[in-house]
Amino acid sequence: MAVYTDVPDDELRTFLADYALGEVISCKGIAEGVENSNFLLRTERGGYILTLYERRVAPADLPFFLDLMDHLAGRGIVCPTPIHAKDGKALRHLCGRPAAIVTFLDGMWPRRVQPFHCAALGRALAGLHQAGLDFRGRRVNALSVAGWRLLYESCRARADEVRSGLADELGRELDDITQRWPVDLSQGVIHADLFPDNVFFRGDRISGLIDFYFACTDALAYDIAICMNAWCFEEDGSFNVTKARLMLANYRAVRALEAAEYAALPLLARGAALRFLLTRLYDLLNHPAGALVRPKDPLEYLAKLRFHRGVARASEYGLEP
Amino acid sequence: MAVYTDVPDDELRTFLADYALGEVISCKGIAEGVENSNFLLRTERGGYILTLYERRVAPADLPFFLDLMDHLAGRGIVCPTPIHAKDGKALRHLCGRPAAIVTFLDGMWPRRVQPFHCAALGRALAGLHQAGLDFRGRRVNALSVAGWRLLYESCRARADEVRSGLADELGRELDDITQRWPVDLSQGVIHADLFPDNVFFRGDRISGLIDFYFACTDALAYDIAICMNAWCFEEDGSFNVTKARLMLANYRAVRALEAAEYAALPLLARGAALRFLLTRLYDLLNHPAGALVRPKDPLEYLAKLRFHRGVARASEYGLEP
Repeated sequence: MAVYTDVPDDELRTFLADYALGEVISCKGIAEGVENSNFLLRTERGGYILTLYERRVAPADLPFFLDLMDHLAGRGIVCPTPIHAKDGKALRHLCGRPAAIVTFLDGMWPRRVQPFHCAALGRALAGLHQAGLDFRGRRVNALSVAGWRLLYESCRARADEVRSGLADELGRELDDITQRWPVDLSQGVIHADLFPDNVFFRGDRISGLIDFYFACTDALAYDIAICMNAWCFEEDGSFNVTKARLMLANYRAVRALEAAEYAALPLLARGAALRFLLTRLYDLLNHPAGALVRPKDPLEYLAKLRFHRGVARASEYGLEP
Repeated sequence: MAVYTDVPDDELRTFLADYALGEVISCKGIAEGVENSNFLLRTERGGYILTLYERRVAPADLPFFLDLMDHLAGRGIVCPTPIHAKDGKALRHLCGRPAAIVTFLDGMWPRRVQPFHCAALGRALAGLHQAGLDFRGRRVNALSVAGWRLLYESCRARADEVRSGLADELGRELDDITQRWPVDLSQGVIHADLFPDNVFFRGDRISGLIDFYFACTDALAYDIAICMNAWCFEEDGSFNVTKARLMLANYRAVRALEAAEYAALPLLARGAALRFLLTRLYDLLNHPAGALVRPKDPLEYLAKLRFHRGVARASEYGLEP
């Protein structure tokens, strides 16, 4: 939860004069999201999200993200749609930061994931992958194998502060995964961070997908692996095969899973676990005193990593080939 | 900025079933307010604020606050109006905490206070005092002279960590103010925390007053003194006589200031400065590592305290008797 920048009311009014959104009615900082400052903005025209881009998001990447949301919205994906100012530009500046306004999406993200959520997620993820096929923007996944190595090197000396032996275990894992990481799977736009807090539901239906600020060009099946980790484990660390089956079956109902993608799932899931373990470890070790965001537990993902290490074939997830 | 409790979507739906507000459309934690968890709730019926009461607010005081908001709303004051559940009760429970839903108010609070804001504030404050005259609830001001003594005693040993000599200066100040504190001024319901972030504007008009969780029964003129400190000093510490004059003149246009109230203003303003200095000092010295709220600077109020100590008569504020 975070708002890093307070937006003065007079600066906001000046900023909004460049849009055709009418007068501002209210603007409140939202305690969600850890990367940027987000405000729930209401104007005479409706509800919007105003985002000031603060950290991690490289300004050079912002056109990719905003173009992607425009593209997906045009393909019928319910996602935040950038509002273009009177000059046609969606990316602008406010309080010395890059800033954009997007549409507000109804719905709430599920705090307690149930099987029906995973079923809906599978369809939505496949729909997202299909809708992104003809998107022309490209962005390298900065948090794939090469990025993990950098994170690992910067954490190695202090990793054992979090758990004894962690540095060695992660080093072996990284070496093994790097050697075997698949490079020939079908590529496309992936969300790369489709955790439950980025998927809104109304009732049992998905009402929107948000937070495309890790989106990139990568193996589509890697996105499935990220979701398996984020949606199909219980709080006690156990893997819920029912949820995984529902997610995959519904994904396949929209987009066929290729044999190579299916076979690669255990390795992709290990890689996905390592990725979130490393970024959480980095955040924990570099957590500034007095920061407004509580770091997430990296060890949750160590358990997931170890689980997948023990899986030889995707069929062990309870999935049919 | 703070949300201390995350409200699961399923618990929220159960909670809302007791109200006649329709289905929940969205619910987002707001990064404003430091005492409670606040959510911007949208249902089929409209926009609301859902508050979970976390700290400092004593549960026994909650009926006073909610009854007061009901009373003031009934007198035409634009303030959050408690929504009563189907059983008639406004005070309920959610996630193990006392909770209430109030109406959402349009507007934004002024980040840069200008003279016209102070003029509007003066009228609104007097209107609030008038509207509270026939409110039957009573609540002792826990943060008046006796409360300051408790705060001072708990901070004294470490006060000089913040500024050398602070403990002695505050001790002398507290002794002097305590001896001379007026007890015979007109009493009534005061807001007691009407800082700019609790006053919403649309354009140059006030669109709402919020956050009544320090409201209590005390000298009405003490509320004026709190506002003088909060609204009439510039960021460089200088006192803006124009703002003070506008605030007071507009207050007087609605409610006459008694001679004793006028004469007591310098002392009341010193006391008000000491009150916020002491609570900020306490919060700074007791700020937990990793807390989600940045403590405010107590020394801002030391400067205000010293300013008022040098004021012999209210006329020195530029105010006519």
